[in-house]
Amino acid sequence: MKLIEYQDASPEVRAIYDDIMAKRKVSSVNNFWKALARDPQTLKRTWDSVQQIMAPGALDPLVKELIYIAVSATNGCDYCIASHTAAARNKGMSEEIFGELMAVVGMANETNRLVAGYRVPIDEQFQC
Amino acid sequence: MKLIEYQDASPEVRAIYDDIMAKRKVSSVNNFWKALARDPQTLKRTWDSVQQIMAPGALDPLVKELIYIAVSATNGCDYCIASHTAAARNKGMSEEIFGELMAVVGMANETNRLVAGYRVPIDEQFQC
Amino acid sequence: MKLIEYQDASPEVRAIYDDIMAKRKVSSVNNFWKALARDPQTLKRTWDSVQQIMAPGALDPLVKELIYIAVSATNGCDYCIASHTAAARNKGMSEEIFGELMAVVGMANETNRLVAGYRVPIDEQFQC
Amino acid sequence: MKLIEYQDASPEVRAIYDDIMAKRKVSSVNNFWKALARDPQTLKRTWDSVQQIMAPGALDPLVKELIYIAVSATNGCDYCIASHTAAARNKGMSEEIFGELMAVVGMANETNRLVAGYRVPIDEQFQC
Amino acid sequence: MKLIEYQDASPEVRAIYDDIMAKRKVSSVNNFWKALARDPQTLKRTWDSVQQIMAPGALDPLVKELIYIAVSATNGCDYCIASHTAAARNKGMSEEIFGELMAVVGMANETNRLVAGYRVPIDEQFQC
Amino acid sequence: MKLIEYQDASPEVRAIYDDIMAKRKVSSVNNFWKALARDPQTLKRTWDSVQQIMAPGALDPLVKELIYIAVSATNGCDYCIASHTAAARNKGMSEEIFGELMAVVGMANETNRLVAGYRVPIDEQFQC
Repeated sequence: MKLIEYQDASPEVRAIYDDIMAKRKVSSVNNFWKALARDPQTLKRTWDSVQQIMAPGALDPLVKELIYIAVSATNGCDYCIASHTAAARNKGMSEEIFGELMAVVGMANETNRLVAGYRVPIDEQFQC
Repeated sequence: MKLIEYQDASPEVRAIYDDIMAKRKVSSVNNFWKALARDPQTLKRTWDSVQQIMAPGALDPLVKELIYIAVSATNGCDYCIASHTAAARNKGMSEEIFGELMAVVGMANETNRLVAGYRVPIDEQFQC
Repeated sequence: MKLIEYQDASPEVRAIYDDIMAKRKVSSVNNFWKALARDPQTLKRTWDSVQQIMAPGALDPLVKELIYIAVSATNGCDYCIASHTAAARNKGMSEEIFGELMAVVGMANETNRLVAGYRVPIDEQFQC
Repeated sequence: MKLIEYQDASPEVRAIYDDIMAKRKVSSVNNFWKALARDPQTLKRTWDSVQQIMAPGALDPLVKELIYIAVSATNGCDYCIASHTAAARNKGMSEEIFGELMAVVGMANETNRLVAGYRVPIDEQFQC
Repeated sequence: MKLIEYQDASPEVRAIYDDIMAKRKVSSVNNFWKALARDPQTLKRTWDSVQQIMAPGALDPLVKELIYIAVSATNGCDYCIASHTAAARNKGMSEEIFGELMAVVGMANETNRLVAGYRVPIDEQFQC
Repeated sequence: MKLIEYQDASPEVRAIYDDIMAKRKVSSVNNFWKALARDPQTLKRTWDSVQQIMAPGALDPLVKELIYIAVSATNGCDYCIASHTAAARNKGMSEEIFGELMAVVGMANETNRLVAGYRVPIDEQFQC
């Protein structure tokens, strides 16, 4: 559970921390980045990917956060749920949106397993 | 893998099939419903829940389908991916939206496991 | 996907196949055992464990099969769902029992994820 | 991680809390319900479903709790394991039953993955 | 399930296909790449990441393939199991290595769930 | 969360604790064993299996620990990650190896889900 604090980081890692702080307009980086910094290559690749993937596109950034929470709740990742819930709130997630998100996540997890247990064959019209 | 066809269904099950077909403006029900019909109580409860949860609300129906796909891909449910991808297309999912959805799903699954392996402690600001 | 048929098996593997067939009163072994036979040590250990774990005890064999199906549906293991559903039927699983089993499995998968997403803290009375 | 306490709840939520307490003969509701109360619709739907699904039927309530624990252990949901283990004990789960339950859960999780890795094809007799 | 064949690919996608074929010394790319090509950004990012992550380093390429198979079997991803098993064989995986790999994967999945169900607290010496 | 301490253990359980301590050259057993001791049959079977499976073979013990961590991170089992990370360090896992392990684990989890969502059909050459 070692975390690399800024003062202990290599110049390579500090440059990435600086970039994260500048682009996110914050004065420190989250524990996620301080942990990944143990492997600078993974730190860099992950930060590059996050910027590319979470940027506004055909989907707006809030919807992307909701999808992130849906996956994280399905996987039971407490850290990711906590950090992306905070991010989603910052991007406008209301209590009502959160409630609807969780309802869909719960239902999908339920029906995913009903489908498995009932061994439902894929309908022809869905096969292409 | 028994499926209950309309002609073999009890009046109770037929009434639900009729309701599904009427509300969805289709002439038959998917295999999912034909499988659940083996347990009419589960069929009814699931159809009631789907209508309540997937209805337009603070989130629009397309976003709800995207969340459904995100969960189903994370769980590896082929049937659910196939049927909800079809539903999402009907509600306007473009190829570009699908690409962005899958990119977020992939990234979230990756970082969920990085967080676990690196044992990242939750930042204080995310704990409430 | 190599399967070891009886005629191609080593004496060590044949002895285990013979034991499975004798104890289960069947004339051939399932593909599961034919696949594990690629590693005789795993074949033997798994057969020993299955006999110990699935034997009648405080829980009767049908309930053990139901638990097996619950896990397999949650993990989406099609082979295991198919084979243990057949085993459960042989041990008396009615259509009604199957329906109730799947309803609980679906609900548990739903609430497991609601708990994660809502970040529900464990009640004091459950902590010991 | 907001929980809705009785004194802060809307009349709609209080009515459900009252119903839970009356039917379960307890003087307060668990954190699970206090969390879901953030979305009264999900609170109501979940309480209705739990009552329907966990009621005595072809399976007795203890077996249903065991299935719930099996799913929750497979998903790694600490809250659900804790609360349903307590519920199972109240319904008569002995230490011996718990041991057998966990042995089956462990074995099923092991063989589910062996089947995947060995790519075991489904036997013909299991395909219908 | 649309796959982008070489002749239908954009110059951008063709360049990546060419790079994959040249570096892997093969005359066509796998379906995985043909599917990702629907989103050229994801195709490029994934190919870049795979090259970086799967390259020889402190771990040799065969061990990396074994880890890939371990994850894929745990997630039940049939495609990934099939393709990485083939890759591992090309890199020297013997039948004996495969057997030991699967034994560890099975055992780990079993004990992961025993730990959850028994609610085993982390030993002090493992907490740092 | 009951743990069976040595002084409270039956002679049968003490014998296994003694064997673990002798073979591992330690003066106490981990919480994992103290929890399993609630079911002596599971304690014995698990200890026997661990010794067989984790022994040096075609794969060296460090690689087996890495595979164990890969599975445990994918399943989000905090206890197992903590204990097997400690075991891997004792067997020579460097910080660099850990970084590469986690990078592969993250990537595999990402591509497993991309494959599911894109519904990638298995290439002919991987089907046998």
